[in-house]
Amino acid sequence: MRELFNEIKSLYDQVRSKRGRNVERDIFVAQIFEKSTALLGNFEILSLVSRVPQKSYFCFRGVVEGRQKLSRAINSDLYFPNLVIWQNFVEGLKSGELDEGGKENFLKVIYTVAISFCAVNDIFADRDQKTPGTFFEHFISYLIRLRLQVDPVQSIQVLDYDGLDVSLPTDLIFNLGAAKPKFHVPVKTSTRERAIMLWAHQKLLDGVYGIEKFVGMPVLLTETKTEARTYQVTEICLPDQWLVYQLYISKLKRVYYLDMPDAYKRLAYAVPPINVKPFIEFFFEWEEVYSH
Amino acid sequence: MRELFNEIKSLYDQVRSKRGRNVERDIFVAQIFEKSTALLGNFEILSLVSRVPQKSYFCFRGVVEGRQKLSRAINSDLYFPNLVIWQNFVEGLKSGELDEGGKENFLKVIYTVAISFCAVNDIFADRDQKTPGTFFEHFISYLIRLRLQVDPVQSIQVLDYDGLDVSLPTDLIFNLGAAKPKFHVPVKTSTRERAIMLWAHQKLLDGVYGIEKFVGMPVLLTETKTEARTYQVTEICLPDQWLVYQLYISKLKRVYYLDMPDAYKRLAYAVPPINVKPFIEFFFEWEEVYSH
Repeated sequence: MRELFNEIKSLYDQVRSKRGRNVERDIFVAQIFEKSTALLGNFEILSLVSRVPQKSYFCFRGVVEGRQKLSRAINSDLYFPNLVIWQNFVEGLKSGELDEGGKENFLKVIYTVAISFCAVNDIFADRDQKTPGTFFEHFISYLIRLRLQVDPVQSIQVLDYDGLDVSLPTDLIFNLGAAKPKFHVPVKTSTRERAIMLWAHQKLLDGVYGIEKFVGMPVLLTETKTEARTYQVTEICLPDQWLVYQLYISKLKRVYYLDMPDAYKRLAYAVPPINVKPFIEFFFEWEEVYSH
Repeated sequence: MRELFNEIKSLYDQVRSKRGRNVERDIFVAQIFEKSTALLGNFEILSLVSRVPQKSYFCFRGVVEGRQKLSRAINSDLYFPNLVIWQNFVEGLKSGELDEGGKENFLKVIYTVAISFCAVNDIFADRDQKTPGTFFEHFISYLIRLRLQVDPVQSIQVLDYDGLDVSLPTDLIFNLGAAKPKFHVPVKTSTRERAIMLWAHQKLLDGVYGIEKFVGMPVLLTETKTEARTYQVTEICLPDQWLVYQLYISKLKRVYYLDMPDAYKRLAYAVPPINVKPFIEFFFEWEEVYSH
């Protein structure tokens, strides 16, 4: 099993590499999906105690080098290791003819690619919290690029009045061309009490290049937290604080989730609104997000 | 040794408790200092490879329940488990007659209280990253309260135009009275790539109550990071990014460190400046910070 894990890690290194051509990335991501879910198939499934209404969660329990390891919580309704649907989704993205009727299943396979890689890493390299986050960012970047057909950048120039130009590292920025808005896409596996960073990064771009030049649109995996002793899963959501950030720091046009917390749905009806949606919606509404 | 650790944890619970009277807190903190450094005295000292110019670091290596555990990196020049100087410092704070000639030693004992508690927790409860942060916040709050003689609050009212008052959780706020500026004090053991949160929280207070109503003044322990395999210690510092935050998000009047990174010293001469200083300076300059 360690060997299969090493194969997955090596595919991950390929996805991370900027040199890969797009057709190769398609193969690497599909293989990560296939191998990660196959590897997880060897492990026991442990039901977790869900404290989230209408959602149920489980985790994988593996024994690695004599020690028991648990994966992170996985949403039972979203875990769907179906490679055929994954291939359909990717083909639809590339052809621009994504079937709207397939939304629900597409969201499930996107979630499953992300969470299965994270779960494998939890079990085989549990001290390494960086790899899941890095993989998730490259994975979401790969999907958005398939749709928008542009490569993202991860820095902007800041013009200094004293003539010292500074390059500022940023989250993913997809630029659709001159005189068009640009997507600013922070990608995180969760935000919890760090969500204010999303608004603060948007504020920087607004400050440097002007308001509405960049469309703020974070993509997040989930907000679950598992209590180690009781196996209870909760979602850490702070909707009232998000509204204060949207009022006093900057404006995020969308917040997308793979495992969408219900607690954020009502923010679409607040003043000012925050549109928090399942990530699959982006692929159908991106022109609207960008032009309205 | 586990018993001594449990005694320290029980003292920690007392310090956290809001019920304790001030005179009791003095005793609890002094005992945490005494017991933590005594407990660490049982462990082997391991020299680390410092990649930070002019600083050397070590850690404690303990064997707990058959497993080897390492503490976080400790600055050799600042580790000074001297209870007499600690008592002098606390007495000086309370009387308002702190000896300026003792600055260097006072900073060392403040650092040693904080880092020795963290190191003990690293060794006995290494998965628990929350306790060191919580202790550090209560400890810094305790010291500032000794000087300013006011209790901090940790929330503010946000006035909503539609009449729905919202209470917003905040970092520590010390209010010296009506028509006087208030200190806004985020306390963190490190910031690394999360530093932007300090400016964003200040931005919220500026937005809700107006610019310069709250004096932003974070207190941080250190920015060290230890690479597990090579035992190399680096400092994660991002001075150019801090300047962009100070330009485009909000204004922090001071940033205080217990183990001050040299990389931030030059920011005092930037335009706009960021005054990053050793924490001990606060106790001598607080009236200036507050009124200028």
